[in-house]
Amino acid sequence: MDASEFRRRGKEMIDYVADYLENIRERQPFPDVTPGYLRNLIPDHAPEEGEKYEEVFKDIERVIMPGVTHWHSPQFHAYFPTANSYPGIVADILSDAIGCIGFTWASSPACTELEVVMMDWLGKMLNLPEQFLSSSGGPGGGVIQSTASEATLVALLSARTMFIRKHIGPGDDPHRENAVMTKFVAYCSDQAHSSVERAGLIGGVPMRMLETDSKGALRGETLQLAIQRDKAAGLIPFFVCATLGTTPSCAFDNVLEVGKYAMSFNFNPHKWLKVNFDCSAMWVKDSRLLSDAFEVDPLYLKHENQGKMPDYRHWHIPLGRRFRSLKLWFVLRLYGIKGLQESIRKDVMLAHEFEAYIKSDERFEIFGEVVMGLVCFRLKGSNELNEKLLKLINDDRRIHIVPSKVKDTYFLRLAICASRTTSQDVRLAWNVTREITNGLMSSLKQ
Amino acid sequence: MDASEFRRRGKEMIDYVADYLENIRERQPFPDVTPGYLRNLIPDHAPEEGEKYEEVFKDIERVIMPGVTHWHSPQFHAYFPTANSYPGIVADILSDAIGCIGFTWASSPACTELEVVMMDWLGKMLNLPEQFLSSSGGPGGGVIQSTASEATLVALLSARTMFIRKHIGPGDDPHRENAVMTKFVAYCSDQAHSSVERAGLIGGVPMRMLETDSKGALRGETLQLAIQRDKAAGLIPFFVCATLGTTPSCAFDNVLEVGKYAMSFNFNPHKWLKVNFDCSAMWVKDSRLLSDAFEVDPLYLKHENQGKMPDYRHWHIPLGRRFRSLKLWFVLRLYGIKGLQESIRKDVMLAHEFEAYIKSDERFEIFGEVVMGLVCFRLKGSNELNEKLLKLINDDRRIHIVPSKVKDTYFLRLAICASRTTSQDVRLAWNVTREITNGLMSSLKQ
Repeated sequence: MDASEFRRRGKEMIDYVADYLENIRERQPFPDVTPGYLRNLIPDHAPEEGEKYEEVFKDIERVIMPGVTHWHSPQFHAYFPTANSYPGIVADILSDAIGCIGFTWASSPACTELEVVMMDWLGKMLNLPEQFLSSSGGPGGGVIQSTASEATLVALLSARTMFIRKHIGPGDDPHRENAVMTKFVAYCSDQAHSSVERAGLIGGVPMRMLETDSKGALRGETLQLAIQRDKAAGLIPFFVCATLGTTPSCAFDNVLEVGKYAMSFNFNPHKWLKVNFDCSAMWVKDSRLLSDAFEVDPLYLKHENQGKMPDYRHWHIPLGRRFRSLKLWFVLRLYGIKGLQESIRKDVMLAHEFEAYIKSDERFEIFGEVVMGLVCFRLKGSNELNEKLLKLINDDRRIHIVPSKVKDTYFLRLAICASRTTSQDVRLAWNVTREITNGLMSSLKQ
Repeated sequence: MDASEFRRRGKEMIDYVADYLENIRERQPFPDVTPGYLRNLIPDHAPEEGEKYEEVFKDIERVIMPGVTHWHSPQFHAYFPTANSYPGIVADILSDAIGCIGFTWASSPACTELEVVMMDWLGKMLNLPEQFLSSSGGPGGGVIQSTASEATLVALLSARTMFIRKHIGPGDDPHRENAVMTKFVAYCSDQAHSSVERAGLIGGVPMRMLETDSKGALRGETLQLAIQRDKAAGLIPFFVCATLGTTPSCAFDNVLEVGKYAMSFNFNPHKWLKVNFDCSAMWVKDSRLLSDAFEVDPLYLKHENQGKMPDYRHWHIPLGRRFRSLKLWFVLRLYGIKGLQESIRKDVMLAHEFEAYIKSDERFEIFGEVVMGLVCFRLKGSNELNEKLLKLINDDRRIHIVPSKVKDTYFLRLAICASRTTSQDVRLAWNVTREITNGLMSSLKQ
């Protein structure tokens, strides 16, 4: 594909993408394929000679689309949203073309520097304490991680290193480090995301999943008791991860009780902020704690300007990194703060619309509270009944949702996921739910 | 930005990208900016109201481009290549638009299934043993990781779990796991990439960096002695990472001696195979060893078809993942195996052209052997002399290279990095090198 063919094919793809997204409502949100569907649709080895572009392009609808779960369909209500916006896509084309690997400042100064400033913009939008901002002139600042899983792991590993250093000298035998680690213990709530448990697994430290209150929130007293118990047993508590908006039910840990003074904060603009995946925003009050955990410094990555700007390779697990701040820059500028606020408020309002439908039907109950864009609901009755309802709704294929369970109560989760979702779509989701419930109830009476 | 504006702006960006890449030769490969250049060029906070697209677009040349290290400039010869191709960019636009998060099969079946088959295609192209392929019907298969750093870490963590399980039961106290780990020891060569040392740091296990032979290769005898010594000291050797093509000098560990039967293999199509970053290909003979290390299984991620196809979230550190196999599919089909072979052979030939220039001038010597697309060279003389030469070459700005050091010998590394590099560019690199050497030599005589 030479430049002139790229101009043609790239523009065709832009049109295909606009057509796909504008007409996504016509596609079934969850596909009908069964595992292994794709292998038989394409050859079992790569072609020797290059194929024509037309052949590849027509296979998008033949091979790919029948197996796509359309996350941006207004009828997709599963998990939490993943962001997708036209400005994000346009910025990503530029990022792909520049194609730099921004592991050090020198490997592409613009890549590092735009990220530093964008993380300040975003931090100011959230009213983060000054210490988290690079503009404060202190050791704090933000970094784009690929995923929240990685941000959590990085925070845990930094805390681990900090506590190892407290107990042994830097030149000690690594086996002694490991011996100290056998006393470490970390905490999260029993509602924390699976990636927090996994961070403990990877870091080789036990993660205590503490009981939450009736709203699914971790409380200060619970944490304090656990810490006291562990200290009494000779263990070293070194890390707490609090969650604002749990995946099962969007519960908020009580951070005022758990600890007012977090050393890091992470959220995903690639979820609700119109920045295409991946863009997970993490801030720390002291970036030296990150580089302490990760710094390895070969000559081929050294450059003259070390120390004056962050070398982000010391801030995360991968070495290579894309120019992801371009997406943030385009999105923040083209929507403006107000545009992003409006879009989030619209989704919250739609969630409350669905809540009102649920409350209007006495067969149903809301689980917990409707917070942000998530509605947790269930049929009054057994978990089994609700499992049946979930399966019938998803088998029907008009909408797609996933279940969850908190303290042995099984419920259905409807998240407002797509920027194109409207009141009509919410009404459709409700009509599907009610209609299927009617059928389920009458089948049970027979 | 509505759909009609996206059609217009997306197409303008396609043209901008084609213009950028076709005329990249006119841009200086390494920028002139100093750290902090960008902050003063843009506001210190996000705008309240959305801005016009024209404002954002014109800032690409004003704010971004002056600070870009142009990795795809034919005069960029630093690090190793990062891939960039028109088919890769077009495929990535589609991936962004679909915008699915493929953590489970159900979260987008096409995303998982195309990856399974593409990793088989790629594995067959490399003649990997059948056990590494999903088509073998066994527990092996491939997965796209974000970076080789993550692949190495995943392999190490899997080995760690496998050895922990050998020594304690699955229900044991996690603190006992940690106590067993204090005896673990891992190995790589002293030429291994910094990410291997880092994997040890993250995994909490000591990584022995074993001495290499005169060619920078790890030999079987060295490894065997280290293992014997560690076993005699009561330690448990559990992991070896061999490198084919080290970063300092493109040395190849002697894998026939180190161990014929690797359990995993990783290389980066996002380096030399025209697939834009990120796409790091990893194969394993037994994927159950990966999920053993990582599996955490909340209800909201369960689906009806678990076990029939991989849930890739168990194969790596992040939970979320982009639809990256689309890039592989477009690139493999549009270039064909022959097209990719030709492009790699061209780069190898260009490296030998530069080698010939170096050998034609008796002031210079080649360091090691010219393997693949990397030429390691130096002025006969002290390290200090070569450090001066490197600085002068990079300060001149016509080409950009990085240095390296093996066994206290400092040398310069010229890598063929860009698909647009030609014999003329290699001659330019040589002319710059020779001209600056002439200047350096005469300044030393004065």
